[in-house]
Parts: sequence; structure tokens; C-alpha cells
Amino acid sequence: MNWEEIDKSAKLWIKEAGDRINNSFEKTLHIETKSNANDLVTDIDKATEKFFISKINEKFPDHKILGEEGFGDELNELTGVVWIIDPIDGTMNFVHQKRNFAISIGIYENGVGKIGLIYDVVHDELYHAIKGEGAFLNERPLRKLSSVPVSEAVIGLNSTWVTANRRIDPTILASLVRDVRGTRSYGSAAIEMAYVASGRLDAYITLRLSPWDFAAGIILVEEVGGVASTLKGEPIDFLNQNSVFISKPGFHDVVLKEYLRDGKW
Amino acid sequence: MNWEEIDKSAKLWIKEAGDRINNSFEKTLHIETKSNANDLVTDIDKATEKFFISKINEKFPDHKILGEEGFGDELNELTGVVWIIDPIDGTMNFVHQKRNFAISIGIYENGVGKIGLIYDVVHDELYHAIKGEGAFLNERPLRKLSSVPVSEAVIGLNSTWVTANRRIDPTILASLVRDVRGTRSYGSAAIEMAYVASGRLDAYITLRLSPWDFAAGIILVEEVGGVASTLKGEPIDFLNQNSVFISKPGFHDVVLKEYLRDGKW
Repeated sequence: MNWEEIDKSAKLWIKEAGDRINNSFEKTLHIETKSNANDLVTDIDKATEKFFISKINEKFPDHKILGEEGFGDELNELTGVVWIIDPIDGTMNFVHQKRNFAISIGIYENGVGKIGLIYDVVHDELYHAIKGEGAFLNERPLRKLSSVPVSEAVIGLNSTWVTANRRIDPTILASLVRDVRGTRSYGSAAIEMAYVASGRLDAYITLRLSPWDFAAGIILVEEVGGVASTLKGEPIDFLNQNSVFISKPGFHDVVLKEYLRDGKW
Repeated sequence: MNWEEIDKSAKLWIKEAGDRINNSFEKTLHIETKSNANDLVTDIDKATEKFFISKINEKFPDHKILGEEGFGDELNELTGVVWIIDPIDGTMNFVHQKRNFAISIGIYENGVGKIGLIYDVVHDELYHAIKGEGAFLNERPLRKLSSVPVSEAVIGLNSTWVTANRRIDPTILASLVRDVRGTRSYGSAAIEMAYVASGRLDAYITLRLSPWDFAAGIILVEEVGGVASTLKGEPIDFLNQNSVFISKPGFHDVVLKEYLRDGKW
């Protein structure tokens, strides 16, 4: 498998897709009503996914594709090479802010993450990694992550998970919120995982993500020495929804043991 | 009073201060330990405030200055022209992320907001308003804000305020978190208020801010038709700490009445 060739193609296409999205803003600027804006973003989401599918099918006909918009393949297992794609991660930000969204692409071989790409389109920041060859923000290498004390940590965590919700007793994460230095929430899992990979956040915690939301982010974070698991400490399942706790090493152990009760919740 | 002259000077100085901060990053890139980074940011904070004070004293010797770092004047009342300055709002982001911080300057005349400037240094985005003459993001005019239903609102709100804290019963805002479309938290009051002014967020809620944190933001948001009050619905006091609820009009009334119990908490 020529991973450099695949990487080169993925980077070329993700930049081209970003250009198309930027051009689409020319239109959205003139859209007044929210419902129209939502329709448009759905169109852009779908068009972007179809763009990738067409490129991949043409150049790598034996690769499979798992995409948020559902135009890819129906997969029950991750055999062979699989591209896991979210054409616009952070759709609500796309509509409301025209920023803080990203294109996310994770490329797996027999279930093992090989290439991760997260492209923050508006800021033209491409986070990328090839397994074993380091991670980069544009041309700059990202540093290896090291642990941080809980009291100095800034974590990505949405308020939803510390108020009544269907997925976790809100008091569990409330005690972590109390003890860390601060929390942030940007509304895009891909951006928040890219922030963990680049050391801007010490961790990111969420209760419900789909494979296309985390496929690229986990490759990036693991490549710089970070750790990913579910909130119960289990391995992530790349074919189904998961809770996700991704963080600096060391910190991951401490939080899993002292706050997440080793998964006993 | 020549407000155009004051505005022109303020813009010139805020851009120059931003350049100085960007240059300082060259140094911070080489700083490894957190404590050193904190010392450096304190130095930059202080140096930036002193820069503004020196410029203002030279050009407008009868103006007064209220600054976060405490090098300005001791004020018991807002008579005359007062510059209220936060040299770096979002210090923790400055250290951890080298982004998502801003310089904030509000200029008041006898307690009335006249000029508001929030400069997102890294993204080179200057939000500015002169009272009665509209608000702008760089050269682009910002639109007038109109109301939004609670179910469609995206609000700036930190997890702290929906977990046990010393300032508000966490269940009060938890019900708002449950009903809105989403929450965000960026870790800089100035940036979050600039986001409200530019329609990227529908509201921003926090329990404890100082005058330099909100002096510019309130001028900006009010200039585009937004509403600012404390969380009890009282007017903001520009000489002391306040809770702050700043939002689109209409939405402000609904939340104050239906969630904040008209201040009876």
C-alpha cells in the first residue's frame, strides 16, 4: 500500500473541498432565513461528501468509504482500506458562525488508523498525521503530549453533560468541572480533537459521537502520544456511536480512575 | 469632544498593541514551563496596558483610564471621558492556545458608552462601534440583531454555572441549557460578546465579570440592537463586578422572565 500516495491525494482533495466550501459562502451571505440556510448547508454537506467519493472511487477503486451523509458504503467490518469522512463537522457553527467547522477524514487499514486529516477551512489550518511519522499543523510538527495535573487542565466539555441528560449522571463530570482550571466548548468534535492534538486543550470529553466525528481526531491525538477510550475506559468502536474521552497521557489514567470510577457508572 | 479623533487614535493604538503581542509570540514559542509562560503573559499584559496609558496621557491628558492591570486611575465615578481597558482578555487562552484572546477598550463619557473596540489579535478581526453610527467587523457593517426562539438559540455559557458554584443555583441555568439548541464556551468574555454583536452567538451569560471585561462588548452589542443587563435584569454597574446577560432583543425578555424568574433568585 502506497500510503504517501494516498496521503498526497487526501490532502489535495481536502484543500479543494475547502475551497469549494469557501466559495459557497458567497451564496450563504445572501441567505436571510434560517430554514434556507439549513437547506443550503445540507446541500454543501452532501456535495462535499459526493466530491470525495467520486475522487476516491476514481483513483482508489478498491477503497471503501464510510460517510456521515450516507453516500458511501454500508459497512459491517473495517477490512481493507476504509475512508471515514465527515464533510462538515460542526454544522451548527457552519450555519451560525461561518467558522469553527472542519472537514474530517480518517483512513483505516483493517481497522488500524493510518492517516488522519482535520481541515479547519476558514482558518486554513490542516492538522494531519501518518501513523508513525508524526503529526503536523500545516507544515509545523506537533509536539509530543505529556501529562498535566487536573488542577491545571483546560478541557473541552459541553454544558449538556453536567445537566440532566440521558447518557450520564451529571454529577460525575460536575466534579471534574469543579477541579479543572477551565472548560471550553467549540461545537465541533473534530476541532476539539485537533485542539487536543496541538496542546490547546488538555482533553475532550463527550457522550455521543459517530465514527466520522472521531476517526481522524483519534489518529492525530494518538500520533502525538495522547490516549483515546470511551468514558468507561473501553476501546473505541469505529463502526458505531461511542462516548469519547481523549486526552494527554497520564491525565487520562487519573481522570478515568478518580472521576470516571474506572467505568463503574 | 472630537469622537472621530478619539476613535482614530484608539484604532491605531489597538492595532499597534496587537502587533506587539504577535511579536511577543516569537518568544513564548520557546518557553517550555507553564510557570515561565504565566510570568511572560503577565509581563505582556502589563506592558500592553502601560502602552495604552502612555499614548492616552500624551494625546488626551484629561481622559481617565480604568485598566485591569491597575496602572490607570483609581475611580469612584465615571465623570468625564474614561477609557476602560483589558489589555489581554482571555489570559488562559493566551497561554494555552495563543489564540481566542482579545484586547478590549470601551470609552465612556459621563458613564455613557461612546466607543467600543474588541480586537481579536490572532485573527486580525477588529470589532468596533461609535455610539449611534453603527458597528463593524473590520470594514464590514454588522447587522441589526433580531430575536430568536429559545429552541433555536446558541448561547455562550460556561459549564461552571450549571454545576455547584458560589453565585447561582445551578438548576436555574440548567433548564435553559436543556431548552436551547446549543451552548458554547470560548474562555474570553470580550470574544463572546463580539460573537453576540456579530450574530455568531445569540446570547452570552456569565456570573462574574469586571468592568474591563464588558465595557467594550456592551457598547458593541447595544449598537446593533442587543440588550445588556445583570442576570437579575438590573442595569450593569460599570465600576464594579457584575453578572452579565447580553443577548438579542426579545430573547432577552423571554429568558429573563421564563428562566431567570425576573431576578427572583
